Amino acid sequence: MFWLLFGIFLAACMAVGATGGLFPPGAWYRQLNKPSWTPPDWVFPVTWTTLYVLMAAAGARVALSPDNALAMALWALQIAMNGLWTPVFFGLQRIKLGMIVLSLLWLSVAATLWALWQVDWIAGLMFVPYLIWVSIAAALNWSVWRLNPKAANEKRAVSS
Amino acid sequence: MFWLLFGIFLAACMAVGATGGLFPPGAWYRQLNKPSWTPPDWVFPVTWTTLYVLMAAAGARVALSPDNALAMALWALQIAMNGLWTPVFFGLQRIKLGMIVLSLLWLSVAATLWALWQVDWIAGLMFVPYLIWVSIAAALNWSVWRLNPKAANEKRAVSS
Repeated sequence: MFWLLFGIFLAACMAVGATGGLFPPGAWYRQLNKPSWTPPDWVFPVTWTTLYVLMAAAGARVALSPDNALAMALWALQIAMNGLWTPVFFGLQRIKLGMIVLSLLWLSVAATLWALWQVDWIAGLMFVPYLIWVSIAAALNWSVWRLNPKAANEKRAVSS
Repeated sequence: MFWLLFGIFLAACMAVGATGGLFPPGAWYRQLNKPSWTPPDWVFPVTWTTLYVLMAAAGARVALSPDNALAMALWALQIAMNGLWTPVFFGLQRIKLGMIVLSLLWLSVAATLWALWQVDWIAGLMFVPYLIWVSIAAALNWSVWRLNPKAANEKRAVSS
């Protein structure tokens, strides 16, 4: 049962992760000013893949535990929030709205970590790298906003 | 506790629903050939809002029930799949890929309905309108594909 649950939670992560392939960082992202500590592009999918495995394992552990209501509701919330950022940032090229989405994602991940920990501290621990990574992503989104005031105020003309 | 859980699951639905406002049906969608039974635009947000309330209530009921592991994992999977369709269809204007996403969404909603029902038949019942609506959406996506063979083979040039 653990592995079936792990597979379902991993599929949820992969559905959200598909946005990274559908809305890849293109010429628009490359021409933005970025802080010196910006990780190279390849780091993102590698890191996310690792995080997805941890997130799915945490979900499966807590799904099998009693009194998991809050943790399960928050796990669903954070995965829904997670899927929003890439289409907003890379698809719509909206830097400020991306910052809002990332802030809400950070809060939902922090809340999920806390709720998982109440049920099973190992599952909570599995969310720590995720919270750290979302913190780094938020710092990067923030820096990109500050370093590109003009691009941050542009709304991309959606071709239609 | 029910209402807190209801609020969290509803927030997850609303995060996904935000894609409808971010990637609205524009000129591209209007100029496509659509079947005669296509619902007017206003029907979509009204229907989805109703479905979100039912989905959140079903989630909260089952979160509070024992032996909810499979249902909770599948609830998370279907919400992650749900958030993919609008960015793919309206954002990327990819009709065939939208059909694939909708098919996977349909499967995940059907599986969630079944799993919810095992735990609490009322929660399962609350997913029935959702499955019907996704079936209608899939029929619409399919018809749009068939009626617009040229548009279905075009990949939108993402401005960058």
